[in-house]
Amino acid sequence: MEIYFATGNLHKLAEANSILSEFGVLLKPAPSQKIEIQSDSLEEIARYAAEAAYRSLGSPLVVEDSGLFVESLNGFPGPYSSYVYKTIGCGGILRLLEDKCNRAARFECVVVYAGGDSLRSFVGVANGSIAESPRGSGGFGFDPIFVCEGCGGRTFSELRPSEKSAVSHRGRAFRALGEWISRSGREHTLK
Amino acid sequence: MEIYFATGNLHKLAEANSILSEFGVLLKPAPSQKIEIQSDSLEEIARYAAEAAYRSLGSPLVVEDSGLFVESLNGFPGPYSSYVYKTIGCGGILRLLEDKCNRAARFECVVVYAGGDSLRSFVGVANGSIAESPRGSGGFGFDPIFVCEGCGGRTFSELRPSEKSAVSHRGRAFRALGEWISRSGREHTLK
Repeated sequence: MEIYFATGNLHKLAEANSILSEFGVLLKPAPSQKIEIQSDSLEEIARYAAEAAYRSLGSPLVVEDSGLFVESLNGFPGPYSSYVYKTIGCGGILRLLEDKCNRAARFECVVVYAGGDSLRSFVGVANGSIAESPRGSGGFGFDPIFVCEGCGGRTFSELRPSEKSAVSHRGRAFRALGEWISRSGREHTLK
Repeated sequence: MEIYFATGNLHKLAEANSILSEFGVLLKPAPSQKIEIQSDSLEEIARYAAEAAYRSLGSPLVVEDSGLFVESLNGFPGPYSSYVYKTIGCGGILRLLEDKCNRAARFECVVVYAGGDSLRSFVGVANGSIAESPRGSGGFGFDPIFVCEGCGGRTFSELRPSEKSAVSHRGRAFRALGEWISRSGREHTLK
């Protein structure tokens, strides 16, 4: 079964497909632009994008939005993690935390599926904390500074891809999507 | 002459009206939600919002988008200045600049007018630098840490409202709009 994935991020496409292959689902890059609105809510951003992409494509598709929420920074960088990574990077987050005792953070991911009669959201969360310095070479974005709970103090970048998928926000959200597709026994084909 | 202003920010409404009153224009809050997309370009954000609001309202309106662009932070916080102010505030920007020699920054504002046959953009820029610490009590947002070029070392928050309007990004953009409306002799009334 093939479904479109409205994303320009090849890292996300690879991570999502490694999970969904277990459910017999293959995501293909959607031939449409993803419209992202500004909002404090990942779910609102992803739903708007999914509805707009579905209006334009007319085929079943998924959209994903994710972000890193740092507790002592009032959730910053949150929904704007990609822009913040591009401008001030991991170093910026570390500097902002220099005087903070609380380094708790979480990664969140919302996957929205849009089909003919459905608009469904699947949420994944990974709790953890911000490392003192970047470590590891895997993953992308803020992965080198995110220490995942239950991973023996390792950052996302220090995990093997399969280990990261097992515990990551994106892994959890896409597994929930895969399970729902399996349960509902739907069949989608690219138009 | 009355025109809608699609904004939820009463500070912006007051600043814009203090300028446009010289041109016989009064902005009224638009009874519609402003849709802001994520983009690195203020103009793209403002044009999308203006087109969407015009489709929904059917009356002439203006939309404004502005941001603080800090040179040594690769333009951060840029189009997301409002969210960044809300989460890490002026203190966050100051901390990010602690190890930087270059404190150059600019405020940019794009005003977009949408009418029956027109979609026009008006851009205003204020060059300056980031202060060592917040000063003054006027204005809003990052005004206390923005030292405007040609203002004798004072921050936007240390200027009187009329002084700020004379040199600010928002003042320049709305004056350009006012001059265009005057030149074109258009007459708009609220439907």
